[in-house]
Amino acid sequence: MTPPPKDTPAQMQKQDESTGLSALVQSRNQRSIRDDGSFNIEQRGLPFVEPSDVYQELITMPWWKFNTIVLSSYALVNTLFAVLYYVIGLQHLTNIEGTTEWERFLDAFFFSAQSLTTVGYGRVAPVGIPASTLAAFESLLGLMGFALATGLIYGRFSKPKAKILHSKNMIMAPYQGGEALMFRIANGRKTQLVEAEVSVTLGKIRVEDGKEIRRYFQLDLERSKISLFPMAWTIVHPINDKSPLFQKTQHDFVREDIEVMVYIKAFDETFSDTVHHRISYKAEDLIWGARFVLPYEQQADGKTIHHLNKVGEFIRVELAASPKEEVQEVLRKS
Amino acid sequence: MTPPPKDTPAQMQKQDESTGLSALVQSRNQRSIRDDGSFNIEQRGLPFVEPSDVYQELITMPWWKFNTIVLSSYALVNTLFAVLYYVIGLQHLTNIEGTTEWERFLDAFFFSAQSLTTVGYGRVAPVGIPASTLAAFESLLGLMGFALATGLIYGRFSKPKAKILHSKNMIMAPYQGGEALMFRIANGRKTQLVEAEVSVTLGKIRVEDGKEIRRYFQLDLERSKISLFPMAWTIVHPINDKSPLFQKTQHDFVREDIEVMVYIKAFDETFSDTVHHRISYKAEDLIWGARFVLPYEQQADGKTIHHLNKVGEFIRVELAASPKEEVQEVLRKS
Amino acid sequence: MTPPPKDTPAQMQKQDESTGLSALVQSRNQRSIRDDGSFNIEQRGLPFVEPSDVYQELITMPWWKFNTIVLSSYALVNTLFAVLYYVIGLQHLTNIEGTTEWERFLDAFFFSAQSLTTVGYGRVAPVGIPASTLAAFESLLGLMGFALATGLIYGRFSKPKAKILHSKNMIMAPYQGGEALMFRIANGRKTQLVEAEVSVTLGKIRVEDGKEIRRYFQLDLERSKISLFPMAWTIVHPINDKSPLFQKTQHDFVREDIEVMVYIKAFDETFSDTVHHRISYKAEDLIWGARFVLPYEQQADGKTIHHLNKVGEFIRVELAASPKEEVQEVLRKS
Amino acid sequence: MTPPPKDTPAQMQKQDESTGLSALVQSRNQRSIRDDGSFNIEQRGLPFVEPSDVYQELITMPWWKFNTIVLSSYALVNTLFAVLYYVIGLQHLTNIEGTTEWERFLDAFFFSAQSLTTVGYGRVAPVGIPASTLAAFESLLGLMGFALATGLIYGRFSKPKAKILHSKNMIMAPYQGGEALMFRIANGRKTQLVEAEVSVTLGKIRVEDGKEIRRYFQLDLERSKISLFPMAWTIVHPINDKSPLFQKTQHDFVREDIEVMVYIKAFDETFSDTVHHRISYKAEDLIWGARFVLPYEQQADGKTIHHLNKVGEFIRVELAASPKEEVQEVLRKS
Repeated sequence: MTPPPKDTPAQMQKQDESTGLSALVQSRNQRSIRDDGSFNIEQRGLPFVEPSDVYQELITMPWWKFNTIVLSSYALVNTLFAVLYYVIGLQHLTNIEGTTEWERFLDAFFFSAQSLTTVGYGRVAPVGIPASTLAAFESLLGLMGFALATGLIYGRFSKPKAKILHSKNMIMAPYQGGEALMFRIANGRKTQLVEAEVSVTLGKIRVEDGKEIRRYFQLDLERSKISLFPMAWTIVHPINDKSPLFQKTQHDFVREDIEVMVYIKAFDETFSDTVHHRISYKAEDLIWGARFVLPYEQQADGKTIHHLNKVGEFIRVELAASPKEEVQEVLRKS
Repeated sequence: MTPPPKDTPAQMQKQDESTGLSALVQSRNQRSIRDDGSFNIEQRGLPFVEPSDVYQELITMPWWKFNTIVLSSYALVNTLFAVLYYVIGLQHLTNIEGTTEWERFLDAFFFSAQSLTTVGYGRVAPVGIPASTLAAFESLLGLMGFALATGLIYGRFSKPKAKILHSKNMIMAPYQGGEALMFRIANGRKTQLVEAEVSVTLGKIRVEDGKEIRRYFQLDLERSKISLFPMAWTIVHPINDKSPLFQKTQHDFVREDIEVMVYIKAFDETFSDTVHHRISYKAEDLIWGARFVLPYEQQADGKTIHHLNKVGEFIRVELAASPKEEVQEVLRKS
Repeated sequence: MTPPPKDTPAQMQKQDESTGLSALVQSRNQRSIRDDGSFNIEQRGLPFVEPSDVYQELITMPWWKFNTIVLSSYALVNTLFAVLYYVIGLQHLTNIEGTTEWERFLDAFFFSAQSLTTVGYGRVAPVGIPASTLAAFESLLGLMGFALATGLIYGRFSKPKAKILHSKNMIMAPYQGGEALMFRIANGRKTQLVEAEVSVTLGKIRVEDGKEIRRYFQLDLERSKISLFPMAWTIVHPINDKSPLFQKTQHDFVREDIEVMVYIKAFDETFSDTVHHRISYKAEDLIWGARFVLPYEQQADGKTIHHLNKVGEFIRVELAASPKEEVQEVLRKS
Repeated sequence: MTPPPKDTPAQMQKQDESTGLSALVQSRNQRSIRDDGSFNIEQRGLPFVEPSDVYQELITMPWWKFNTIVLSSYALVNTLFAVLYYVIGLQHLTNIEGTTEWERFLDAFFFSAQSLTTVGYGRVAPVGIPASTLAAFESLLGLMGFALATGLIYGRFSKPKAKILHSKNMIMAPYQGGEALMFRIANGRKTQLVEAEVSVTLGKIRVEDGKEIRRYFQLDLERSKISLFPMAWTIVHPINDKSPLFQKTQHDFVREDIEVMVYIKAFDETFSDTVHHRISYKAEDLIWGARFVLPYEQQADGKTIHHLNKVGEFIRVELAASPKEEVQEVLRKS
């Protein structure tokens, strides 16, 4: 593959050290940002796992996984206590009526469940010091476990989760006689977002001293902040001589392994908290020569309908002034 | 109806793209902001409902609705479990004393309620593996449901809700020899608000290329931020040659379908959180020639009384220098 | 009393409209800010009480009051349910063994308590549809009430409460050859405060058009923000020709009914939240000619001790250059 | 020991009053900031302990301590209530079957535990007014205590705790033909940190009027803010003529008892909250002439590995232009 062209001095100067990514040395065809918005870096040597890391894990895992963990912990703890009651002797529990040992063990298991949940029917009840002590401890443990569950369930719900929809593609679109790199975002939840800010960082491979090195640049935007965000927002990076993308062809996007990293921050009024979102576009997500379609429709009664599933819809257009190059085969290879 | 007059070049320039509303194409007589502060846009194509959307719905619905949902869920879940106990066989529950099948079913229903709430009197208690397993699961479910309810009730209370009172009308008032557009807001709660900020956006219809199009403008304010907000605050937009309302008559407000959108943000010290509020005024809310009455009263003991129900009170005054026009009949029509 | 002197033009210009207090027309000898930091204004005409206002009240009331309300609500609810069980008929509760009607009523009362707290011993248990239905409802109510209590207790603890200690007096102290108005604050809790900001507003009576009117001014500070706040911070307003206190005597402080209002904001690292505090100093709190004593002590082992009870300690000093006047008798009168 | 050299006038001017530490008069060999990030000052004269201080203590203590307190409180409260039931008379509890007084007391103890946790088996149940009243009160107390525990456990988990890893040493490294003081930090948790800011304050002893006094200076940084913080960040203070460390030797670091205090602030996306961290470096932590090793490794599949345990790794290098001095023996003495 042809090495990427050298940048102009103006493009050299635009390099941005303040992104915190200067040392990120991803190889070609690796995204810096994963689909879930996390950085594509493996952290090793983390000292040790802390309780709050486990808690955080329990907060963010999917519901089916969380429920599975709750149910199996419940079964496990009850089994452990059932074993302990069995060891102490089931004659210390009233009304154990199982005829086989297995049924008697299950009676202990259910007594444990009744203690842990503090339902305590009392048909089976502890008698004597060892069983009573164990039951007293178990119901305290149950309360504490339940306190934990309350916090977990509250935590799972109460943290604001932005669902920023973004166009699947970024497009090179006609803009004020020239071109601009555009993509579009919208709020995918019913909450009200205000004071939305976006910052866009370009990562690309540059040859320095004969070595390929990945460099990062802040892209200037036509507008980087809006006070209200009720509708789709088209983010526009005009291609001019200050842009690190000036005079680049679609081919260059592939050759320089370009990645456009988007960082969105907004205030969620409903949750009264700040939400964040990151997107990564790569060369294969670029549509060279397109224009976004307006995702709005006005009803007969004058009401505006916003079609969220049309946020990324575009039509192909010709780009008059831009450098052209055949890149179809290149794209097919990568 | 006469089309609205063309704007001056200065007024053209004032158009503000940073409101995030540039594409909002509401037709005449539609407000951009509804009474509850949400945008008058219907979002369609939202991918799917998420648990946290349901949670959010449960947090924000009125209390009667929330309580109805809690009560009917309780009844429903107990009915479901009663059916299951009935299927397993009521001989596996102790002391089922109902004589008819319906009474026996109700006994199962009440046993279910006693398990779900973990009250577990124990007069009726499960015997045998199937009934005990079901009861063990039900009391866990009860605890989890209760954990959820705890979070919901906390969430319903702990999120700060601003209650910003605003004058029913905006007024065109005498101001420093000219006029100013004014409205008044006050804190309708006992909490202390500080660092209040207000931004006012004007939406109006303009004829561009022979087509009516709605445009948005940021209005300059005499003061847009106050550090303490213990009393009524009169928001003042002076009408000068930089204002998009310069030399407009009351008639123009109707013809241009003017909407004044207000966005208020303040820090609620009591809740230690930021609160938000939006207001929309339209042409029919405008009083042409008025002056707000001071809503304060000083008692004999020197104490200041702030009458919150007088925040919007005004008296009619003559506007000396402003352009006049008969609009009564126009207003009556709309 | 002599009317306060007219201000210089420079002093006139310094009037600050952005405090949000411009309309506050407190009479003489009334503080604008009460000791608890709230504004000395009575709000009337608040539309109606909302649940979240009651909640807020329950969060902020003292513990003895909160506990009294919890206990008496518990007694009240149990009494109500006891009456209902009594009306339904105590034959529908098992093991009611009281011999007098009063004892039988108390048995119903204790059964109610056992249902509400979901302890449900089961010696007394409901039999039949009406009693069982009531008990099922009561235990649900108990859980919901308890969910509420959990949120209330969490809310009472988890909101950060700043305890900013301040010197009882403000002092007029020697400063760089002239004078400065000073007072001192310190963090009265064990939490770490960072990014502390202070803003100081002066309220004073001025004669305008022959009428006494209260005006507000922002005071310039030697330093209004510190990044770390582990120790006492002396707030300094230098008296120069830009100060509204320039060439004022101690007598003027009384005549102009001066109030110095302090607004402190800091980030509490421990609670990860912003805390706020307000202080009001009046003429009678002013010490004319003093110097704060350093509240630190260095131990033999090199450790610094910060004596929080000495934050307001000062020694009397002579003010060389300041205008003097005999005000002792004036102070005694007011 | 030779007194530290006088500063140049430029260095004198750099003294920074806005750190809030100006009065901190630590003696030699005392750190201003302890290892846990708190200030090395003993606060005395704190008015009194408040409930929220106790709560805060319970939130921040280690888990083993918290669990010990929960368990011993449980035992203590049960003992107290057992004594009360014993005093009332155990004939008012059903099924007390202990044969000795000690066993009968333990039966009361276990009944108390069953009431406090609301498990209420009911084998032992209160009969009569005094025992029933006490039990009704105890189960309410249990619920309230449990509400408190729920909040505590939630509080222990939900507050974001930054774990910023930092290099054990600060190094004097070659930098752009001269030198720079450097140290390195990284995020030691799996959470995503954004908008990280760092501010560095230098504390050193200066001779003023023949007296040693500790002064504080803000150090200029090559970069003090990064928008994303997924990897190690090397903080760089270039040594130039505006630096208070200009032309200082390693010896001067010891003589002037230099302390470099670092304050880091970042937004934790996962917790949606701001986190803080403080570090203190002293002369003995300084490596004179070193260069940090890159803690990254690129795998064969192109993935970047970040070795968190190598954040502080460095190699020794020669410093060409810097003033040298033999300080080994000085370091050994202190």
